[in-house]
Amino acid sequence: MIDRKIKKELQKSIGKDRVFSDQEYLLAYSYDATGIQHWPDIVVLPEDEGDVQRILEIAYRYKVPVTPRGAGVGLSGGSVPLEKGVLICFSRMNKILHIDRESFTAVVEPGVVTFDLQTACEEMGLFYPPDPASLKTSTIGGNVAENAGGLRCFKYGVTGGYVLALEGFLVDGTKIKAGSPCVKDVAGYDVKSLLIGSEGTLAVISKIYLKLIPLPEARVLCRVDFASLPEGALFINEMINSGIQPAVLEFMDRSSIVASYKYMGLSVEDAPEAIVLIEIDGNGIDVTARKEKFLELVGRKSISDFQVAETNAEKELLWSLRRNISPAISKIKPKKINEDIVVPTGKIPEAVDYIKGLGRRLNLEIVLFGHFGDGNIHTNVLVDPDDPAEMKRAEEALDLIFKYVVSVNGSITGEHGVGITKRAFLPYQFNEAEIGIFRNIKKAFDPFNLLNPGKIF
Amino acid sequence: MIDRKIKKELQKSIGKDRVFSDQEYLLAYSYDATGIQHWPDIVVLPEDEGDVQRILEIAYRYKVPVTPRGAGVGLSGGSVPLEKGVLICFSRMNKILHIDRESFTAVVEPGVVTFDLQTACEEMGLFYPPDPASLKTSTIGGNVAENAGGLRCFKYGVTGGYVLALEGFLVDGTKIKAGSPCVKDVAGYDVKSLLIGSEGTLAVISKIYLKLIPLPEARVLCRVDFASLPEGALFINEMINSGIQPAVLEFMDRSSIVASYKYMGLSVEDAPEAIVLIEIDGNGIDVTARKEKFLELVGRKSISDFQVAETNAEKELLWSLRRNISPAISKIKPKKINEDIVVPTGKIPEAVDYIKGLGRRLNLEIVLFGHFGDGNIHTNVLVDPDDPAEMKRAEEALDLIFKYVVSVNGSITGEHGVGITKRAFLPYQFNEAEIGIFRNIKKAFDPFNLLNPGKIF
Repeated sequence: MIDRKIKKELQKSIGKDRVFSDQEYLLAYSYDATGIQHWPDIVVLPEDEGDVQRILEIAYRYKVPVTPRGAGVGLSGGSVPLEKGVLICFSRMNKILHIDRESFTAVVEPGVVTFDLQTACEEMGLFYPPDPASLKTSTIGGNVAENAGGLRCFKYGVTGGYVLALEGFLVDGTKIKAGSPCVKDVAGYDVKSLLIGSEGTLAVISKIYLKLIPLPEARVLCRVDFASLPEGALFINEMINSGIQPAVLEFMDRSSIVASYKYMGLSVEDAPEAIVLIEIDGNGIDVTARKEKFLELVGRKSISDFQVAETNAEKELLWSLRRNISPAISKIKPKKINEDIVVPTGKIPEAVDYIKGLGRRLNLEIVLFGHFGDGNIHTNVLVDPDDPAEMKRAEEALDLIFKYVVSVNGSITGEHGVGITKRAFLPYQFNEAEIGIFRNIKKAFDPFNLLNPGKIF
Repeated sequence: MIDRKIKKELQKSIGKDRVFSDQEYLLAYSYDATGIQHWPDIVVLPEDEGDVQRILEIAYRYKVPVTPRGAGVGLSGGSVPLEKGVLICFSRMNKILHIDRESFTAVVEPGVVTFDLQTACEEMGLFYPPDPASLKTSTIGGNVAENAGGLRCFKYGVTGGYVLALEGFLVDGTKIKAGSPCVKDVAGYDVKSLLIGSEGTLAVISKIYLKLIPLPEARVLCRVDFASLPEGALFINEMINSGIQPAVLEFMDRSSIVASYKYMGLSVEDAPEAIVLIEIDGNGIDVTARKEKFLELVGRKSISDFQVAETNAEKELLWSLRRNISPAISKIKPKKINEDIVVPTGKIPEAVDYIKGLGRRLNLEIVLFGHFGDGNIHTNVLVDPDDPAEMKRAEEALDLIFKYVVSVNGSITGEHGVGITKRAFLPYQFNEAEIGIFRNIKKAFDPFNLLNPGKIF
């Protein structure tokens, strides 16, 4: 009953064409890329900040949950409306409001697709580096909410590093701003950083101020093949310590390579045991110097093959090889359990060895690939949900992997967020007092637990 | 009376040689570089984490204020024990616990002097860039508490950017850790960033994990003289947008130059109207390329003089010129009111013009210098406290300057912190709701308002 009253108020306040409770809408906004599904009561598609404020004011008056959402392509259930209520989808607030060549800044609405911003920047000779794998669908708002990573983080860092300021609303509709367009600003607590990666649980963001950098003049993409997994993993560490500082330092194990090869119709006969992808970028002269240094390093190594992508077609082929891993391994078994653990970079070879050993011991196919330059190991356990014994072994493996990661001072999640799927593992990484602080912070912003309830802890 | 009981308990718990209430101790720990003075009741000099925990447990039991302090060279009263109680000084917790060449990390106690860490790093070919002007006395703990800046921030960013993780204690002595040694970590809220720059009001830090980078191979220091102030200010923006990306981009106006010249015994006859100091660093080939680009840029400008420091003596002379401004201008008038406002870099010429105009209109000597590359303008109003009319005009000027700064989306403080001195101006930059969030966060960590009470808001 209350839903009908809220819906009526919302429709009156922000317009009928922006408020929906038809079954097909509720269904469409009920899940993310994890497949976890919970239906909201009402879906609202605000078109400006005023809409967002009015939605929050009304929802707050009725004390119903509010879940903000971007494109719904998250990997931890972060935007799934677990406790029903009002779902705010930012798909219509997708305007790039301003790109300033002089001050190297952009101002965007949360619903802007990451790739669209990158394209607009590049046309002006500017660069917005964060590039989560989902960049062609995911939104800047979602990227900020999860503090998304991507391939270029090794050199350029994660989304949060490019957020200058955030504008938005507290749960009751009060307007706030956090951060400033200035490089230096130590007035008050760093609420901006607290909001970044808070998965929509502390405030609803309606405007994002971003830092841009000059577009690199040159880019070189290389591929190095290894005849054994440990050699590939060790090479990552050599690259990290070499001072070459590539933008991208990606790893693929044999399972990922074979899956991606097959997916692309390539012969798997001579697929290597590991591939490391490296992109070096910067100004022309510097890239040349670093490429020389890199070739020298590679020349000293026992590698099985090596390629510098010369043409655009060659580059595209290498990127496809990397990008296709995810869809390709989804075809091997009915389900992949997709984790994004992080270990300190010095521990990468040991972690790879540990996880692969675990797979052998528990008879599980575990595929490893991803942003090894950041110590960020995409760990995919391939399972059949209809095989309860295998599911149990997978559960055991994940439990051990999370325990291992925490034991070496790593993190249970490097870029996907905790959301719903990693809630149970949060106490592996944080003690009671630390989770107590999270709860107190949540209460400080949202005393009635209405903003995206049930997430993180 | 309660002080004596607490003192006795502290002495019993952590040792008589670490707990003091003699007048000379209380005096010595009662002020910082602002000269603001408030005596603590008890001074404690912990020697390890266990001491810190026991101090907090005891103080919490008696519900007395606790103020953590590094070297006491802050510029906003941040470490002055405004509401008395226990002062914890970290001078004896000054050990560099570990520097790791492989993982580019350091682990230090909070009392380590910034310069000592830099020296130790450089001996190993590593680089810890943050360099607040006070680096030879200020401590890493103090730098983290204030999120200190420095000269090299234009390229390298502020202290917070180098903090990987913090260990410390909540007000009741509960041990916590925030952050991780990993590049990527999105588990839970970003409590680490919240603690950085929180001026000792949320927790007491006892161990700091820092990120290091490779030591730049080469450095070039240059000086450019201008015949007018606006030309100098405009040059800063050209440098910012040039892509040359120097490490240091410092500005000095004529008042600073004349004061520093006199201080160093140089003839002021041909002192320019403005000087811009530029340091370009990086690997050899890249520095050469960027130096060429810089010389080309300078060659096209109408400048009055130009120098590339070739010898160490020449470099030292240039650095002294910059470093001596602060002591030199202190000699012009009995008091300098020292502010560290920030404006978006595009607004630097306008801001310089506005502030200088204000000085003329209100008949005040206002000296401008500092980290203009970051938009960070050290604004010094020189006054005689015994001249009430001048003091009143200075107050008016500062009020107008803070209002101006906020009107252009700047910050009232770029690196000194709010502390006591800028509390009154906090509402210029933040609305009631935003300060409300600060208060709620404070309550979430410190419900009885015992940690460094009276600071920030």
